[in-house]
Amino acid sequence: MLKCYAVLTQCRNAVFSSCAAAWPTFPRHLHPRRFIMAALIEEDLKHCLEGVTVSRLMGPNEANFAGNVHGGNILKLMEEAGCILATRYYNVAGKKNLPNYQPGMAALVRVERTDFLQPMYIGEVAELHTELTFTSAHSIEVLITVFAEDCIKGQKRLTNRARLWYVSMSSDEKVLPIPPLPNTKKIEQGKIRYEKQKKERAAHRHTRIERVPSILQEELDPQTVGYSQTTLRHLVGVVDTNSAGYVMGGVIMKLMDECAGLVAVKHCKTNVVTASMDATNFHQKVKKGSLVTLTGFITFTSPKSIEIEVVVDAEFLRSGSAQKERAVSSFFTFVSLDSNHRPMPVPQIMPVTEEELERHKAAEERYLERKRQREQESTS
Amino acid sequence: MLKCYAVLTQCRNAVFSSCAAAWPTFPRHLHPRRFIMAALIEEDLKHCLEGVTVSRLMGPNEANFAGNVHGGNILKLMEEAGCILATRYYNVAGKKNLPNYQPGMAALVRVERTDFLQPMYIGEVAELHTELTFTSAHSIEVLITVFAEDCIKGQKRLTNRARLWYVSMSSDEKVLPIPPLPNTKKIEQGKIRYEKQKKERAAHRHTRIERVPSILQEELDPQTVGYSQTTLRHLVGVVDTNSAGYVMGGVIMKLMDECAGLVAVKHCKTNVVTASMDATNFHQKVKKGSLVTLTGFITFTSPKSIEIEVVVDAEFLRSGSAQKERAVSSFFTFVSLDSNHRPMPVPQIMPVTEEELERHKAAEERYLERKRQREQESTS
Amino acid sequence: MLKCYAVLTQCRNAVFSSCAAAWPTFPRHLHPRRFIMAALIEEDLKHCLEGVTVSRLMGPNEANFAGNVHGGNILKLMEEAGCILATRYYNVAGKKNLPNYQPGMAALVRVERTDFLQPMYIGEVAELHTELTFTSAHSIEVLITVFAEDCIKGQKRLTNRARLWYVSMSSDEKVLPIPPLPNTKKIEQGKIRYEKQKKERAAHRHTRIERVPSILQEELDPQTVGYSQTTLRHLVGVVDTNSAGYVMGGVIMKLMDECAGLVAVKHCKTNVVTASMDATNFHQKVKKGSLVTLTGFITFTSPKSIEIEVVVDAEFLRSGSAQKERAVSSFFTFVSLDSNHRPMPVPQIMPVTEEELERHKAAEERYLERKRQREQESTS
Repeated sequence: MLKCYAVLTQCRNAVFSSCAAAWPTFPRHLHPRRFIMAALIEEDLKHCLEGVTVSRLMGPNEANFAGNVHGGNILKLMEEAGCILATRYYNVAGKKNLPNYQPGMAALVRVERTDFLQPMYIGEVAELHTELTFTSAHSIEVLITVFAEDCIKGQKRLTNRARLWYVSMSSDEKVLPIPPLPNTKKIEQGKIRYEKQKKERAAHRHTRIERVPSILQEELDPQTVGYSQTTLRHLVGVVDTNSAGYVMGGVIMKLMDECAGLVAVKHCKTNVVTASMDATNFHQKVKKGSLVTLTGFITFTSPKSIEIEVVVDAEFLRSGSAQKERAVSSFFTFVSLDSNHRPMPVPQIMPVTEEELERHKAAEERYLERKRQREQESTS
Repeated sequence: MLKCYAVLTQCRNAVFSSCAAAWPTFPRHLHPRRFIMAALIEEDLKHCLEGVTVSRLMGPNEANFAGNVHGGNILKLMEEAGCILATRYYNVAGKKNLPNYQPGMAALVRVERTDFLQPMYIGEVAELHTELTFTSAHSIEVLITVFAEDCIKGQKRLTNRARLWYVSMSSDEKVLPIPPLPNTKKIEQGKIRYEKQKKERAAHRHTRIERVPSILQEELDPQTVGYSQTTLRHLVGVVDTNSAGYVMGGVIMKLMDECAGLVAVKHCKTNVVTASMDATNFHQKVKKGSLVTLTGFITFTSPKSIEIEVVVDAEFLRSGSAQKERAVSSFFTFVSLDSNHRPMPVPQIMPVTEEELERHKAAEERYLERKRQREQESTS
Repeated sequence: MLKCYAVLTQCRNAVFSSCAAAWPTFPRHLHPRRFIMAALIEEDLKHCLEGVTVSRLMGPNEANFAGNVHGGNILKLMEEAGCILATRYYNVAGKKNLPNYQPGMAALVRVERTDFLQPMYIGEVAELHTELTFTSAHSIEVLITVFAEDCIKGQKRLTNRARLWYVSMSSDEKVLPIPPLPNTKKIEQGKIRYEKQKKERAAHRHTRIERVPSILQEELDPQTVGYSQTTLRHLVGVVDTNSAGYVMGGVIMKLMDECAGLVAVKHCKTNVVTASMDATNFHQKVKKGSLVTLTGFITFTSPKSIEIEVVVDAEFLRSGSAQKERAVSSFFTFVSLDSNHRPMPVPQIMPVTEEELERHKAAEERYLERKRQREQESTS
């Protein structure tokens, strides 16, 4: 067991092998085969297909008072790691294989649902492994697996994994063609995932243009939606953007998690943590100099969890127009923890308006669907 | 009472109404009418006149060891919120109403005096409400009100408010004309404030060019001015600037508060907090790549407060000249807190040189004037 | 004694004088004469030759759990202070004295060995004094002395000092000629230091191109090199670069120290601190948009110290090539502290492969050489 851990510590950038199955915190559905890099790739693309590992020490500013690292910080790191791999792959493979190659930079368009399986604490090292898993004509899929490493105890735990979809953008904002991945082994499963997300993104584009719910002044009870509804605003600065002047998707996800966290704290008045983020689409790139407005509100409560919807609108302040555009929206699930870090019952939400009742019903369906999927995964 | 709080929590961006009067920590002079937005405005300017609310969770890096958020961080947030509203107003109203409109970015030129009425703590949310209150031919006045929200206890306290004056700058550094505010109701009071600040800025421009006091080596007593005098230096980086490459006023105010705080700690050797910042003029824009030198020194002590002057000089390092220019200067009042967070007596300063005695006398007059104004406000 | 401290507090930017010798924590080899600025300089260069003092309050994010500020943060501040002085000197003296002067920005090329003599704690002020000590045809040497100031106790301790070498770069990346330093007094010692570092840099350039050691899967024992070997990766963002778009040397040194610190924690499983950084050469400038990969591994353990080598490779992601270039490498010495902040014995490393044994032997020689030098310095 100790041996197994040591191998994992060491083989950064290398092939994960038989130890994974023996590792106690490894969920059963995370079969080691998924980590094995294809052997039959062209020699000169080998390096860029190897995946990158990004590690970062977690400081006090990245966590809440109980010492739990905010899920938003992990999402931000994941996006950065995915961006590194996608940018490297596009440029190395593209220069070699594309007839009209021009340099490109990866931009996030979608994150698949991710569960936060284990908490991460201040002082631990977040270690992110990345893998190129699929390319379509214009998109790159990256699988990211996150571990929390306690360097003093010598322990490493899987905290979460997600698939991120990127496009490659030229400096004049064109979406560039993606060179096909030389590994053709698992292409069929990739195609299925690609078609599924394409369908969902298309559906999502049309349903999510409704306005942020307005709050009736009569809804004053602490269990109402309006009581905990929270708006954050952020003027996008130089720090938040990539070299192309666009806000990195991870920056937005971090703000979304912060917004959802405040909603959960207001509702529960306890220590809360992110349990999952649903699949999230980035409809709009957000430019430097934009005002980003995030609004979070509770849609549903189960006995021990809360679903919070966060919608993000962007407004370019120097456009001379006060129009906002919906840039992103997603559903976060939070749990409330007692002093022993164990999930505790949450106060039940009381939807009042017709809109709130509708949202509540739709959210309940998502809740049951997630539950079904988890059960399916644990038995398969 | 709880109802009242809940309304306030909810109506972000909305009209503050009758609840304010019933709110216990609301100072009497802060009449709710001030929050009501004019109803008779053109429909398409409505959105940009509504004001913005900026919220931010306060982390450990933003506070001192007793958990008090530094006043400088609040000043920085205030400036950012004001910049958002002024930039939005100029561009939306300007594009519609100005014959030769060009995009502009708000730049801070003055902050009126602000008292820090209540402390803010780590883990609380700073919530800033902004309101457009006056425009002159070339300036915009924004009123900013700051609340500290304890999300777990469900309490919100007013911490401070200030009026900030902005100009709008084009990308080639011209000061742009400001479209007049459609709301003409309270224009007379605004004009009075405008003329008053104009006079003060003009007066200030000529009196504040003296050098930073040099310290005599004989002044070694811990109660002397020289003992606690502190210099901070900061190389202005990309992080500190707006999209136009100029340092944001809030960044400078944060550094000024940090400098004043170190002076106060050296003198009192206790936990100190910012009680107020006097009206502050920004004479010079500071470019990226400049070295900013801040010097803080005590001018006066009352039984329970210290006045500290902070002067800020900027030097553009690649100009090939070692000349500094006075960019800003202001007076901060600090109080010393005991372990129960109550103000305690401060060691009295001993001015020695003629310069120090002169400063001390002028500071005493400011102290008495502030006291008179506070009494006036609380009885009016 | 208190008098002496007060003088030091006050005379920022001024001549350090007789008090230094009387200061108890001042090491004997740090003779006060070194601080005295030459009197015979041209009047108009006086200001820029005076040196700058940079002060910064240390926050919780800059320290480990025992409250010790990471050595890497101090190295970063040192580099920033040196950059300010070198940039100012080049431009002021250059504009006056160089026939084809063009504006330049200082870029770090080498740091001489530095010992961390005393720890610095959260809440203390890091105060850095800089002095121009030598110029060659194309380089500037800056001596930087760092103090930790406890403002509440009124105490200041010397923590470390180092000599940093800079070149001046034009905006089109040419290395610019440096105007000669008017002070010709200590030029002979400067020449000796210059020639010594030139020789070392040349030697280093050829010996350090070997690859990062690959880890054998059999090396699973916690005392092996492979067990604690650590890789950090960082995508260079806007925040990390100077106005010319290149990563500041201090940013890299901070990451190197973080990487070495993680290696030391994994090996010792205790509170560890940086004891010294060996002379470090910057072979390659690193551009914005590059992926920086840092790998740290133990080379040697003495009874109470660990030597860790950190190698840094840079890869510009949009180059279309996956090639990495060795940007920097250095040797850090760490010590392990018990709960009373006293150095404690460290677990001994077990080199296994031929490569590891070779490194161990070379490291032992460096260890003995450092010991000899320390003894020499304390007796001279």
